[in-house]
Amino acid sequence: MEPLKIGLVQMHVEEAKENNLDRAERMVEKAAEQGVQVVALPEMFNCPYDNSYFRHYSEEEGGASYQRLSRIAREQGVVLVGGSMPEIDGDGKVYNTCYIFDKEGRKIGKHRKMHLFDINVKGGQYFKESDVLTAGNSVTVFETPYGKMGAAICFDIRFPELFRLMVQQGARVIITPGAFNMTTGPAHWELLFRTRALDNQVFAAGIAPAQNSQASYKSYGNSLVADPWGNITGRLGYEEGILVQEIDLSKVEKYRGELPLLSSLRHDVYSLRINK
Amino acid sequence: MEPLKIGLVQMHVEEAKENNLDRAERMVEKAAEQGVQVVALPEMFNCPYDNSYFRHYSEEEGGASYQRLSRIAREQGVVLVGGSMPEIDGDGKVYNTCYIFDKEGRKIGKHRKMHLFDINVKGGQYFKESDVLTAGNSVTVFETPYGKMGAAICFDIRFPELFRLMVQQGARVIITPGAFNMTTGPAHWELLFRTRALDNQVFAAGIAPAQNSQASYKSYGNSLVADPWGNITGRLGYEEGILVQEIDLSKVEKYRGELPLLSSLRHDVYSLRINK
Repeated sequence: MEPLKIGLVQMHVEEAKENNLDRAERMVEKAAEQGVQVVALPEMFNCPYDNSYFRHYSEEEGGASYQRLSRIAREQGVVLVGGSMPEIDGDGKVYNTCYIFDKEGRKIGKHRKMHLFDINVKGGQYFKESDVLTAGNSVTVFETPYGKMGAAICFDIRFPELFRLMVQQGARVIITPGAFNMTTGPAHWELLFRTRALDNQVFAAGIAPAQNSQASYKSYGNSLVADPWGNITGRLGYEEGILVQEIDLSKVEKYRGELPLLSSLRHDVYSLRINK
Repeated sequence: MEPLKIGLVQMHVEEAKENNLDRAERMVEKAAEQGVQVVALPEMFNCPYDNSYFRHYSEEEGGASYQRLSRIAREQGVVLVGGSMPEIDGDGKVYNTCYIFDKEGRKIGKHRKMHLFDINVKGGQYFKESDVLTAGNSVTVFETPYGKMGAAICFDIRFPELFRLMVQQGARVIITPGAFNMTTGPAHWELLFRTRALDNQVFAAGIAPAQNSQASYKSYGNSLVADPWGNITGRLGYEEGILVQEIDLSKVEKYRGELPLLSSLRHDVYSLRINK
């Protein structure tokens, strides 16, 4: 099996939505020039990560940003995991949503962040997404020419249940756009990707915005890939950049054979199930 | 609230069972002299960790090793998490079992390893517990004067489901005797304790046998404690020793307040349940 090549776009996000869309397009193009088959953008790639922006920047599914991503995927011939953007539904509810497109530009997946990010660390970070956003209710696994993949968004990675459910549905690569901050990033970002990858014996990729010194919310950056043994195979720093990684999917089966974790789960003793 | 003081006994385990019991007693005594209220022994503290020994060393519940632990707990006035030992039941099945005693020497908990350790890493470790041992079927949480605690054994720590279930039952400290090896230890031991502690916002302690250069199975040692923020607060190396740690249980509530993980679980979307 040929290794899969993926590109993680750690892009600068600014206030002007149009500039963000232009930058995403240029960077996906650059990644495609390096032969990647799957490209992923960061969380809130078209909108500053701040509650005061989400509603104003939100678009319905099929809106301008959605169309732009679809076109980029088609023109560059890549599976495009569109980071996330604020989505508004017919009832006026706003979600933190990831759309995924195949290389013909067709939507093949959509994930609405299921666990909203609320934090209030003494002397550290304060943020409360649930003031503005509504949580999604679906586990997201999508079919690609490279097998099934899962999508989660940022705070979602803190919940092993969601990752296990994606893996139960066949995901072998899980892509998580996310914007950890300078409190939680150094403390937890790498740890969580490594353990989700290890526990589930999958590849786990995290894609963050570049750190923006002018923004109210300082992204930790550090886009990375963890392999099914829990090793980090590549990572960026705080700055803008593209992380290109070769993913040898045969490692999923190799490690599952050597260290049988998923087959050792005690489904007779406990069950993890989706309620609806 | 006074900090809880716990002692992790990373003891040398040799072939002579009686010597192991004597050493355990001496080391628990030393720990008690340092004012600890809870002491934990390593996995298979009275028996070399090797399939060829387990049946021969096994005892029924209430046997000599059990009685010895009960007496040590009572005489030293500590809650004693008795690492683990091979247990044989009336049907001749052998388990990897942890007994827990209060400071009056009464049994307050019993955990039979629920996930048996099978591994076959190319150029690394081979071991197959399931050739000889039978797995337990119960989630183990016990009441102490310092609140509820959970117990797991070694490979059990690879399964986030079990840890979540203990926490759902109220555990705020989880004690895991375990003997990782020189393949899985450096790769995964610390990572797993940190993430289980962080995901569940509890204290997680791991207690390993000291490394024995003469044994067929080389223990990684590295007994440690991880706090609810996912930090390692103390650890040993490969050698015999006692790790004494102060555990500030108010940190459990502090972190759960600052970073609400458990209350953000989407019980409406997914459920983790015990089947029986």
